[in-house]
Amino acid sequence: MKFHDLIKEPKGWGSIDHEVRFSNPYLTVSIDTVITPTRPDGVVWTIAHRKGAVVVAPITTDGRIVLVQQERIPIRANLWEFPAGQIDEAHDHDEAVIRSTALRELREESGYELGPDGELVSMGMFFSSAGFMDEHSYLFAARNVVPSPDGHSPDESESFTGCHAFTQAEFRAMIASGEIRDANTLSAFAKMVTLGIL
Amino acid sequence: MKFHDLIKEPKGWGSIDHEVRFSNPYLTVSIDTVITPTRPDGVVWTIAHRKGAVVVAPITTDGRIVLVQQERIPIRANLWEFPAGQIDEAHDHDEAVIRSTALRELREESGYELGPDGELVSMGMFFSSAGFMDEHSYLFAARNVVPSPDGHSPDESESFTGCHAFTQAEFRAMIASGEIRDANTLSAFAKMVTLGIL
Repeated sequence: MKFHDLIKEPKGWGSIDHEVRFSNPYLTVSIDTVITPTRPDGVVWTIAHRKGAVVVAPITTDGRIVLVQQERIPIRANLWEFPAGQIDEAHDHDEAVIRSTALRELREESGYELGPDGELVSMGMFFSSAGFMDEHSYLFAARNVVPSPDGHSPDESESFTGCHAFTQAEFRAMIASGEIRDANTLSAFAKMVTLGIL
Repeated sequence: MKFHDLIKEPKGWGSIDHEVRFSNPYLTVSIDTVITPTRPDGVVWTIAHRKGAVVVAPITTDGRIVLVQQERIPIRANLWEFPAGQIDEAHDHDEAVIRSTALRELREESGYELGPDGELVSMGMFFSSAGFMDEHSYLFAARNVVPSPDGHSPDESESFTGCHAFTQAEFRAMIASGEIRDANTLSAFAKMVTLGIL
């Protein structure tokens, strides 16, 4: 499902006003007046805009789950998560760009890539906080990944402190215990379970 | 796990600068300079601050899953989700307040409440977008819920367009198809599965 299919304004939706109050390359905040099906006179809403993103769930040829550990500055903690990254905004609706972004983030952050029998499986998308923000992430399972001969090469603005291939039992226990506690990884797990990938 | 235990600055973390660039009752945006274990000289980061929240997964006495359908303005769409709501910020670390907020949101949004054998089970918490935001939500399963004699009474600022008790097979199919696509509901499902609640 493409984000464009969701954000187009269907019957009953419309925009009356849009006032940008903060904007930098990472985040734009606006105060909008929006018409909704139940509120035809419009409602004033604070809306945050972020680039779309990809999240990749890497599964090794022997069925292990690869996670990276990363410093998360807003919460002063290191989290174990699936590799993820933002999409060049001009190409957010271009499936080929989204898939290549997913493969690039996989390799750069985890040091893994698709092996000879590898496959990048689309698992749809999700919204991280739809009540106030349009941020959306496309979810993928990367089946049959192998260590890349190039190793990993994360972006300089990010600080990774670990990478490990966990057994599926370890992965599930980390979700149950709260050691894994980010929306990207939890949402990808929900998709993997319901789509029969795990 | 309490959020306070996560946000305290452990060894190697610290704050050098904090400049608020936008603030209203819904969202605060600041540009911070933060010391991290791998970046002792500090790094400049755009940080969004939101109140903490609760998410409640209601399970009826016959094992159905209750979802509410709600207009989500930033994405111009109606989503089927678990009941959820923000916590009074002064009491974000008070377990009794968090639990009472969960029970209030359950009743107001879905019109259900704990029955005679009902139980509100803590499932931990998650971060919706930890790379740029401190928003965190406490997850609960509300077991053995029944229709409330008071019905529902949502907040005036929210517009609900549906409420339905789905079978577990329907619920899983809605996740697989992408009809359910918000981090709250997907993350709660991940917890329910790994904790053996579903």
